[in-house]
This record gives sequence, C-alpha cells and structure tokens, in this order.
Amino acid sequence: MQEGLLVPIAKFIVNTRFEDIPESVIKATKVALADWVCVTMPGADMPVAQDVKKFIEYRRREGKSVLFGSKETADPMSAALFNGTASHALDYDDCGHSVLGHPTVPVAPVAFALAQLLGLDGKDLMRTYLLGLEAECQIGRWTTPVLSQNGWHTTMAYGVLGAAAAAAAAYGLTEEQTVNALAIAASRAGGLRSNFGTKTKALHAGLAAMSGLEAALLAKSGITGNPKALEAQDGYFQCLAGPAPIKAEDCEVNIGKFWDIVEVGLLYKQYPCCSGSHPTNDVLDEFLRERPLKLDDIERIHAGVSLLSPRELTCHRPTDCIQAKFSLEYAITARLLYGPIVVDTFTDEKVRNPEVQAFFEKIEYEIDDELAKKYEFTEKAPIKLDIWLKNGEHIFLERDMAYGNPEKPFTEEQRKRKFDNCLESCGCASLIDPYWKTLCELEKADAAAVAAFGVKP
Amino acid sequence: MQEGLLVPIAKFIVNTRFEDIPESVIKATKVALADWVCVTMPGADMPVAQDVKKFIEYRRREGKSVLFGSKETADPMSAALFNGTASHALDYDDCGHSVLGHPTVPVAPVAFALAQLLGLDGKDLMRTYLLGLEAECQIGRWTTPVLSQNGWHTTMAYGVLGAAAAAAAAYGLTEEQTVNALAIAASRAGGLRSNFGTKTKALHAGLAAMSGLEAALLAKSGITGNPKALEAQDGYFQCLAGPAPIKAEDCEVNIGKFWDIVEVGLLYKQYPCCSGSHPTNDVLDEFLRERPLKLDDIERIHAGVSLLSPRELTCHRPTDCIQAKFSLEYAITARLLYGPIVVDTFTDEKVRNPEVQAFFEKIEYEIDDELAKKYEFTEKAPIKLDIWLKNGEHIFLERDMAYGNPEKPFTEEQRKRKFDNCLESCGCASLIDPYWKTLCELEKADAAAVAAFGVKP
Repeated sequence: MQEGLLVPIAKFIVNTRFEDIPESVIKATKVALADWVCVTMPGADMPVAQDVKKFIEYRRREGKSVLFGSKETADPMSAALFNGTASHALDYDDCGHSVLGHPTVPVAPVAFALAQLLGLDGKDLMRTYLLGLEAECQIGRWTTPVLSQNGWHTTMAYGVLGAAAAAAAAYGLTEEQTVNALAIAASRAGGLRSNFGTKTKALHAGLAAMSGLEAALLAKSGITGNPKALEAQDGYFQCLAGPAPIKAEDCEVNIGKFWDIVEVGLLYKQYPCCSGSHPTNDVLDEFLRERPLKLDDIERIHAGVSLLSPRELTCHRPTDCIQAKFSLEYAITARLLYGPIVVDTFTDEKVRNPEVQAFFEKIEYEIDDELAKKYEFTEKAPIKLDIWLKNGEHIFLERDMAYGNPEKPFTEEQRKRKFDNCLESCGCASLIDPYWKTLCELEKADAAAVAAFGVKP
Repeated sequence: MQEGLLVPIAKFIVNTRFEDIPESVIKATKVALADWVCVTMPGADMPVAQDVKKFIEYRRREGKSVLFGSKETADPMSAALFNGTASHALDYDDCGHSVLGHPTVPVAPVAFALAQLLGLDGKDLMRTYLLGLEAECQIGRWTTPVLSQNGWHTTMAYGVLGAAAAAAAAYGLTEEQTVNALAIAASRAGGLRSNFGTKTKALHAGLAAMSGLEAALLAKSGITGNPKALEAQDGYFQCLAGPAPIKAEDCEVNIGKFWDIVEVGLLYKQYPCCSGSHPTNDVLDEFLRERPLKLDDIERIHAGVSLLSPRELTCHRPTDCIQAKFSLEYAITARLLYGPIVVDTFTDEKVRNPEVQAFFEKIEYEIDDELAKKYEFTEKAPIKLDIWLKNGEHIFLERDMAYGNPEKPFTEEQRKRKFDNCLESCGCASLIDPYWKTLCELEKADAAAVAAFGVKP
C-alpha cells in the first residue's frame, strides 16, 4: 500500500538538518528573510494590522514572540497572526510561481515566533522557515495552477500547510506527529479570493500562520489525521483542486531533492501592491521617465492582460487604499498623476481624488488572446498597453514580466534600496545597519540576535 | 446593484428579537439544546476531547465559559474549541438535511461559551444558538448537496458561518460588522472528509466553533470582508460548491420566514456513530430482538446503500474505535456479537477482537442502483440487507430511514432515555433532573442557571 503523500514531506521535515542544506539554498533563504523583515515593519503600522492587534487582546498571553514594529511580545500564535497579517498588509511581500501566491508570509511569522519563544539561533530560524516553505511549494507543484484557477487565495490554502510544517520543524515533532499536523492543517485550508480588496486579504496570511501553528500543537497534543488527507477520496486535492482528478501516482515527490527556493525561485516586489500590475508599473515608469505625460494629455488607454490578472486585479473602480492595491486602473492612473509607485501612493485621499476617479473611465481592461494563450494561468502578468493621446499620437508599450522575477532578479542595489526604504518609512532607520548585517550572515546569529528582530526602537 | 447575499442574513441576525420567534421554533430549539447538552457531557471524557484539553493549555485564558464535563472555565474561544470537539466526539449529536452534516455542534458551543461569558439568560442563549443555526441552514439550502458531494465535511464548512452568526448575535454586532464576520468566516471554511476515521473529524466541529467566534471578534475589531463573499467570482459558492455555477439570483432568501429547525427539522441519533449506519442499526436490532442470530450462524451478508453512505462510512476494515464509528461493517458485526449499539460498543478492544475482524470478510458493501436513484445524495441512508445463513436460509431486511429523522421522530420517551443514559454514562446522574427541568423551560432560566451548564459535580 502506498504510504500517503504527507509521509515523505514529514520525513523531509524531521530528517533535514541545517548542515544538509546546500549553500545556494542558504543564500536564497537569507534573501527571502531579509525581504520579509523589511516589509513587515511598515506593514505593522497599517490599519489591518492594528485591527488584528485589537483582536489579539481577546486571546494573547505573555510570551517571548515579538509583535513586529513594537516593543510588545506575546504567545507565538498571537504573534504569528499579527506578524503574518502585518507582513502581507502592504502587499509588498514575495510571490512564488509554485504556489501562484505569497509563500513567505504564512511561514516566516511562525519561524520567527517559535525561534523567539524557543530561543533558536539564526541557523534554526532559517531551517524552520525553509522547511515550511519547501513543504508548501511541494504541494504547490502538485496542484498549481488549478487550485488558484478554482478561486482559492493560495497564500492561505497552501500557507497553512507551510506554517504547520515550519512549526513541526521548530518543535521537533516526530514523523507521525508531523503527518498529523499536516493532515489537520489540510482540513483548515481555505481563503477566498472574493475577499480581495478588503482587509481580509492581508488577514489570510496571518490566519494561515496561526492555524498552521495550531495544527502542529494539536498534533503534539495527540490529535490524529489521515496520512492520505491530500490524495484520498474527499481529500485536499479533490476539494480544493478538483474536479479533474489529481492522482497520487502522478505526483512526483521531489522535496529535498528539488529546492524550490533556488530551482523555481521567489519573486520580489518593487511596488507595494498586487503583483499583477508590476510589469505595467515597470514599463510605464521607464517610459514616463523619458517622456513625462499628464492625465490630460491622454484620450484613452487599453490594457491587454493574461488570464490570472483579472482574477487578482479585481477592483476596477477602487474607492479606498485597500481596493487600490488590486486595481490596474489605479496603478496606471497613480503613476501618471503622482509619480513612481511607493508606499504612500496608496492612501484613501489619493484614491478618492476626483481627477483619479474620472480617469478610470478612460481605461479599458481586457484579456488579450495572444497573452492568454502564451502565458496561460501564470503569475508573470504580461501586459500590452495602448495609449492614445489627445494629439492623435499612439503609444504602445509591452512587458513580459516584472523586475524581481527569478528570471529578472533584483540587483543588489535594488534589494538594498527596498530594505532601506521600508525601514526608513516606518521610523526604523536606526535598524537598517544592524538588521542588514545580521541578515546577511544569519548563520552566525545567536538566539539573542534572533530575539531582537521586530522590536521597534 | 444587488446587495450581497450575506446582507439579508446579517439583517436577520441583527433584527430578530426573542419575541419574534414563533412558539414552535422555540420548542424545537429547546429539544436541540437538550440533545446537545446530553451528548457533550460524556463526549468531554473521550480521548479526542482530552487531547484538545492538552492543546488549549497553549492558549487558554481565564474566563467564565465552562469546559463541559469539568469544573474548569476558560476564555470563550478555548471553550468553544473544547466543547465543540467534545460534543462531536461520540458522533451522537444531531444532523440536518439542509447541511447534510451536523448543524448544532459548531454553533451551540459558541452560544453557551458567550452566554456564560456575557451573563446571558435562557432566552438569549436560545436566540444566539437559533440565529446561528438558521444562518448556517440558509447557506446550506443554497448549496446542498453539491458542497457535500464535492468532499467537504459540511459540519465545518457550513458550521464556521453558523458559529460566526451566533457570535455576532451574542455580541450584538452592527449589521456591517455582522456582514464582515460572515465574510471572514467564509474564508475560514474548510474541513476535509478524508480525515473521517481520525480524531480530526470531531476536531472539525470545535475548529468551526472557535474560528467562527474569532471571525466575529475580528469583525468587531475592524476587519472588513466582501458582502458578496459567497456569490462573487472566486467566492464560497465557486470554491466550495463549484464548478457548476450557483447564481445569486437563483438563491431564494427566506431566512426568518422559513425556520429550518421546524420546516426541515433536525435528525436525532439513537446510536453514537455515523448516521449512515442508523437505518441498518434500527432494522437489524428489531429483527434480532425477535430472532437472535450468532456470528457463526451467518454465511455472508450483502449491504446495498445509497450515494452518501460510502462517502461517510469510509472505514471498511476498522482497527480502532474512531474508525469503527464510520464503518457499516462494524455496526453490523457489533450488533450481532455485542448486542444493541451503545456508547460502550465503540472501544478499541471490541473493534480489535479477532472474531470481529474475521467477520468483516463476510460482509459485502456496495451501492444499490435502486436506492441510489431514489434517494440520490441525501442523508437518509436507506439500506437493503441480504443475510444468508449457513443453514441455507435467506433473510432480507430493508429500511428507508432511521428513527430520529424529522419524518420518524423520537418519542418523548426515547428522547428522555437518551438524555438520561448520556448523563448516567459519565457519572452525572445527579444532573439529570435539574438539567432536564431547566432545559424544558429554558425561556425561564436566568443567567445563573445558564452559567451552571456543563459543570460536572
């Protein structure tokens, strides 16, 4: 009898030591964690994170896990919920092709919360995060893109499994407990993309982190689940990735041989909004730097997109700063009117500006057949922009993918600039140098250095 | 623009006072709560509930919500998790045709936990539970049976919405907050039937209760969601009840006009195991009382079932007491060997008895074409049993549905016998009279009487 797909994932989690991890993977892990830290600090000030802070007053206990962007600490589940939401609040965090969503925000909060609780050092922190990430991406490789096509916010639907895997690693659960943790987590998978454009979108990351951590603790407490919870009848594959059957025997188990973080790679963001607008932002920014245009110069704009875009960029007439993060129309309008897209581009005031609202009517948005065929349901978000000016001129811009994709990686300078900007924007400039130094040599960090992450001066 | 299906549900929750509830509905509500109380007390002693008790040590805070079957109290979320799991641990709790699952176990724990926290009286307790139940069943009426056919454990997938609705009612959330609570809960809907036969099955009820309560508190703290989270693209309908489209305009909104608890009615159990075996248990018990048979008299048995049975009764060769609750083969064998099915029928020892294990081979189990056609994917679990004896005799038994269905209701005597047996079985005989009296006149109970529920002497 086949042993259940969760079993090899559990074996990988239980058996992988830091010393087993290739150098290139360690390097990529440090890049990912540095990006997560820098987007979380300003994210912690966002309204959605502050709402979660109110919520956790109903449940928090004393603990050693830092609520990022403050001096407060709490129990690890409350911290995972808060930090997960905070790190996704700006929509500035990484994406991954294997999960068609945000792989780090459900996992890193668990790694940091448990590392700080359990006194783990930099190596253990990295191991915890990485094993969670790889577990999540292994399941993603079996079920992408269909799970996303079906409508799930994959950040939560895969993320809860990654979070459970990370927690299992940090607590050192047995193989059997780890299988149970993953099966329990599979039963908590959810997250509807229909909640995009509301605060629940960012909350999904926090809920995934908290629920995954709870799953590991439930398993540690004796709760059992089905080792075939993914592939059995009425399992995760059928429920979330159905109705076309995914068969266990067709699922290549290559976790630990195939390191997703280097083989597929993560996609880092230059702009704090949905990745679906990023190629547009890149190409429009480059063009406008050469040739500035005003809103008033423009007669109309046509945007041709591929298949995933209209499922992510759902807010065509945004009226607040959250909806605006999921609006190609706002991204285009804001770049034209306000200049390069930064954290401050997304305020209610800027979105509600009557000039902005009026300009939305000049933008047509539709699926482009050629892009749909060539790119299918992938995260690259290729764009064709036709801009007709009032003077009769026609401008055509196109772009296949954004900078920050694994195929078009950030330069070290871009990466450092994002890091610095993020910490500066939330009054944490004094943390830039010490954090950067620690993160670049995270394998040398001791437990005290790990415990300091997130504490606002 | 249509206002979103969650809106009329929220209006119903916000605007319904106890005085608006018809007398017949109040009566049915008292029956449901009495059944929930009596199955929860012995359920609290079960291993899965005790595991959850270990887990909540990681999160519980001081509070006034009773952990049923003990003298302990805790915060309402920990209590909802524990009591929800406890009340589903025996699989002895009610079922409902509108949700094709267990409607009370995710909702009543929230009602009791918040009533005890907030000092609510019997009327408010009933109102809280009933509004949660009706919200859950309204969504069930829109999406049953497809959501169950797709593989979801509906007890969790609908239950989290019912729990959120109940919590919104108890806290007196505004209409807008209530919509948000339901939208957040929709994003937490999950629960895989592939975890049947493990402890996670019972846990689902507790997780639904806790997550629904959390959703209400998150909304109270300011988190927003989409009022069209159910029917929008990539919403609950598409994700959980897809792929055939359910359209908002086809969903009759009749919550508050159609009281599910009397119009459809609840299904109460005579046996502490999956309802899929209950018609079999009834007809076999009646036959054997007239004509006792021994295992050794029997050559072979053929069981013909309808469509839902094989998706619930998934354990054909059970090896422990949890799997045995989801096994028609065990139900038949146990009745023949051990006598009428009671709580003590489900022990690891009885399941592992070699005589029992050997007899499984004599039972064939398959879908009967006629039953499948006539009953489709409903919860009635009709059965055709062909029993061939070694002496050449052939016995044929059939039954359309179990006693306890709304169409074949319990007698008052059966109801009271279950109540008494449940409380006696866990050493709470002294509670039978006071609890029964309070529950029969629950509209007269004050906050102190409500606060006393669940406390073991």
